[in-house]
Amino acid sequence: MHALSENTGGSAPWLDFRTEPAKYRHWTTEIDGPVARLVMAVDEDSPQAPGYELKLNSYDIGVDIELYDAVQRLRFEHPEVKAVVVTSGIDTMFCAGANIRMLGISSHAHKVNFCKFTNETRNAIEDASRHSGQTYLAALNGTAAGGGYELALATEYLMLIDDGNAAVSLPEVPLLAVLPGTGGLTRVVDKRKVRRDLADVFCTVEEGIKGKRAVQWRLVDETVPRSKFDERVKEKALEFAAESDRPDDEQGIELERLQRSEEENEIRYPFLTVTLDYEGHSATIEMQAPDEDAPSGVDEIKKQGVAFWPLAIARALDDALLHLRFNEPTLGTLIIKTSGDGARIAAYDALLDANRDDWLVREILLYLQRTCKRLDVTSRTTFAFVEPGSCFVGMLADLLFAVDRSYMLDGQLDDRPPPVIQLTELNFGSLRMANGLTRLETRFLGDEDGVANARKLIGEELDAQAAMDAGLITYAPDNIDWDDEIRLLLEERASFSPDALTGMEANLRFAGPETLETKIFGRLSAWQNWIFQRPNAAGEAGALKLYGTGKRAKYDRGRV
Amino acid sequence: MHALSENTGGSAPWLDFRTEPAKYRHWTTEIDGPVARLVMAVDEDSPQAPGYELKLNSYDIGVDIELYDAVQRLRFEHPEVKAVVVTSGIDTMFCAGANIRMLGISSHAHKVNFCKFTNETRNAIEDASRHSGQTYLAALNGTAAGGGYELALATEYLMLIDDGNAAVSLPEVPLLAVLPGTGGLTRVVDKRKVRRDLADVFCTVEEGIKGKRAVQWRLVDETVPRSKFDERVKEKALEFAAESDRPDDEQGIELERLQRSEEENEIRYPFLTVTLDYEGHSATIEMQAPDEDAPSGVDEIKKQGVAFWPLAIARALDDALLHLRFNEPTLGTLIIKTSGDGARIAAYDALLDANRDDWLVREILLYLQRTCKRLDVTSRTTFAFVEPGSCFVGMLADLLFAVDRSYMLDGQLDDRPPPVIQLTELNFGSLRMANGLTRLETRFLGDEDGVANARKLIGEELDAQAAMDAGLITYAPDNIDWDDEIRLLLEERASFSPDALTGMEANLRFAGPETLETKIFGRLSAWQNWIFQRPNAAGEAGALKLYGTGKRAKYDRGRV
Repeated sequence: MHALSENTGGSAPWLDFRTEPAKYRHWTTEIDGPVARLVMAVDEDSPQAPGYELKLNSYDIGVDIELYDAVQRLRFEHPEVKAVVVTSGIDTMFCAGANIRMLGISSHAHKVNFCKFTNETRNAIEDASRHSGQTYLAALNGTAAGGGYELALATEYLMLIDDGNAAVSLPEVPLLAVLPGTGGLTRVVDKRKVRRDLADVFCTVEEGIKGKRAVQWRLVDETVPRSKFDERVKEKALEFAAESDRPDDEQGIELERLQRSEEENEIRYPFLTVTLDYEGHSATIEMQAPDEDAPSGVDEIKKQGVAFWPLAIARALDDALLHLRFNEPTLGTLIIKTSGDGARIAAYDALLDANRDDWLVREILLYLQRTCKRLDVTSRTTFAFVEPGSCFVGMLADLLFAVDRSYMLDGQLDDRPPPVIQLTELNFGSLRMANGLTRLETRFLGDEDGVANARKLIGEELDAQAAMDAGLITYAPDNIDWDDEIRLLLEERASFSPDALTGMEANLRFAGPETLETKIFGRLSAWQNWIFQRPNAAGEAGALKLYGTGKRAKYDRGRV
Repeated sequence: MHALSENTGGSAPWLDFRTEPAKYRHWTTEIDGPVARLVMAVDEDSPQAPGYELKLNSYDIGVDIELYDAVQRLRFEHPEVKAVVVTSGIDTMFCAGANIRMLGISSHAHKVNFCKFTNETRNAIEDASRHSGQTYLAALNGTAAGGGYELALATEYLMLIDDGNAAVSLPEVPLLAVLPGTGGLTRVVDKRKVRRDLADVFCTVEEGIKGKRAVQWRLVDETVPRSKFDERVKEKALEFAAESDRPDDEQGIELERLQRSEEENEIRYPFLTVTLDYEGHSATIEMQAPDEDAPSGVDEIKKQGVAFWPLAIARALDDALLHLRFNEPTLGTLIIKTSGDGARIAAYDALLDANRDDWLVREILLYLQRTCKRLDVTSRTTFAFVEPGSCFVGMLADLLFAVDRSYMLDGQLDDRPPPVIQLTELNFGSLRMANGLTRLETRFLGDEDGVANARKLIGEELDAQAAMDAGLITYAPDNIDWDDEIRLLLEERASFSPDALTGMEANLRFAGPETLETKIFGRLSAWQNWIFQRPNAAGEAGALKLYGTGKRAKYDRGRV
């Protein structure tokens, strides 16, 4: 534990992303048949770190960790829930957005990671609406400002109370000299298709837009008088619920607390171990194959619950990535390894593929997909090493195409057989990137036959030469070169500027089509990161620092 | 002049973008029938500003201003040129990229604007290849490093000399802790479709890749032995030239020196006047309608040459935008106005539209398109004011859809009639944005009938109410509110953080599909801007500052 906390770089203490409803301070989930209400009532006295109060339903990373957990539980624990209404437990204020004082005192790294995580959670909300039959609506029973409106934008239907006061707004530019950085700008013009000049007006009006004009400008879908608000929200939620294909008569599975144990330089989860190398500025994530054969069918999967290997490994990888991102900023290289019996993984993949229409199997595949996306946008170099004893098969083979480079031993290091990799059906459509393509489609953008050739190899054990020939790995050093090559690779990578690597990787990872998600992580986040560095926002006399002090920021007027 | 130079913000002295071959110090154009050779031989003793030498064909803004001029002249002055070979006049070095010492001593603003201009010039090269029948090839007779390789990437065919030494490389990340920011990362994975893991390797290998491997990785199209290089280049150029639809038997028109006169707070061009308001942090660009009727046909257009109004106004607007961008950084708001007889503009538009297949008319339309794109990516707020006496018709009406907001007077201010605007055929396909859509298509992304409705209005004089009803303007204040509204608007805008506005506008302006160009200006440039602010690159101990001193940069290892 000691080594971990010493290496913490953010402004907040070591963050734990595991939580459960009994521990929530800010959110409650109320379930009424097919409709859930997710109610935000932030406890202003429970900030994640000292130094600010969470007034007016403003949020920090702690509030968002609960939201993320609640969204996950609604998917897995409540198959019967087909529509989710996000609303506020505070009168007249839906949500005031990210806490400004918190942003003002946070390190650059924490601001960037905070925005990335909130973005991922909002993308997960859209993912539930679009792919899980669990449609989110925003019941704006008060003003939705900044990040509050951005949260609402992540739902599919926005209802604003018409009480003469409640407005939606993105006041970041006029008030704080930063961007609405949680997808707001992108979703306004690209998802809701607000006309760009009206979007410009909207984003510079501190007090926001309300009433009929908010509907005319497409900022919300409807306004409803206070007297009819609850009734209309319920009606609309039931309407969306009626379109869902989720089952009525099934039990969910409980997301029991994720097991994790920390020792010096090692974190252990079921089926996953993280080893921390502070000297080498790297962390190794080793994922282990199932320790028993795949169950016989969906009933058995449901009995296993969180112990079901694909779900267990998704949860472990998800937590490990978040932990490394927030708590281990100096470990710039993530090394992916695997170990165990790859044949078992192929059997699990086949089971998932055969039952992809089952609600739970669908959830598990979507969760694996979201977790791999989290790896894609992680601002660390990612390498995969394919060594003897490894099991890069199917869903784990997809990690070979997620990382920046992969190295596969051509031959033996000891008496174990040379490593092999293996593709399964899951590599061809179940695990899409933010750009909407599979990782193999992205990889082979320049090679028309690449994907078709790879498809023909499904089920085959591919040694290093076969994997090289199929374009599935980057390099295949032999046993004489292996150790040196790996050592030099890691030393070299650790010698480069962390910032330059982050920018380079962010630009190389997402070739091909663009989507709302890639725009948010690519364009919007990069601009936000830039602004978070600019003295006009983050300097001692910047707007973000001075907010609430009564002092007015003084801007350098030079346009860049 | 005095006020202008006092307000210069970049590290360089006041930049003039007008030049001509007789004044070139770094480039020569050699024309041999349908093939031109554009030869780079940078004079190391002629940097744009003191403090660095332009060794090894490295470039600064001065070198790129000449390149831009040369590219323009090849299009307009040489209809017979159908292929352009970019090559080097220095043995063993094609181009070493942007001068590093220059970057090290430049202000953040200059670095950003320098990259933007070089990006625009490379996009113009691609535009010539794709739309003008003038295909660019790169004859890499020596190493192409960094920006040198990025210049080559902007051509359609890369030929690398196979002499055992010549390589292509993007060494920015390992060497300088910045990104290849002139489109390199994007073009590698999205244009040339280099596999992303190979791209990762390529971008971290200082010495680059040469020979067969460069072809296998798709980094170049072929390698050619020294003995056959010139012959093969010519052969390939002729091959591309044979596909061109440019005429053999026409004269070009000479791009005579653009007339410009500067007085205190005013710059005058033919048909365009810029008024500078340092106190209000704005500049007004007033564009004037033609002072005579449209000529009768293409022969007359060719006789008029640069005096032909659409070409004259494109040249003036182009220069004015570049001047304001580089030399007037504190003028954060650009106001677009027009004056004169709109009926004449409609006639010019009709003439262009009727002759769009003529090589020169095509060039003029493409130039107008590129100039409007330059406005789109200008990091200033842009407003248009439609007042009595204005002529927002056709190509000038497109500016109403390019700006962040437009205000149109509803009624009269004096005895002149209320203003009207008018659409022409040119608003529906001739002036596309970087996203590939027309400005009206982008504007009406959320309104299925918007473009079709607008099309029905072609030729009609639309008053403020009609323009509002059609969604063509943002606001239509009446004469009682006009002055106050405009004053408050400008004051408000000038009170916001320049950086936040830049980021906001960059995110709102390009809704809809993404292209190579939008990726370069959106994602890549934003990341580059961020990195240009990071201490690891630009700090006193950053790699960019220390390059060439023998000292090694010390990096903050925190990943963000």
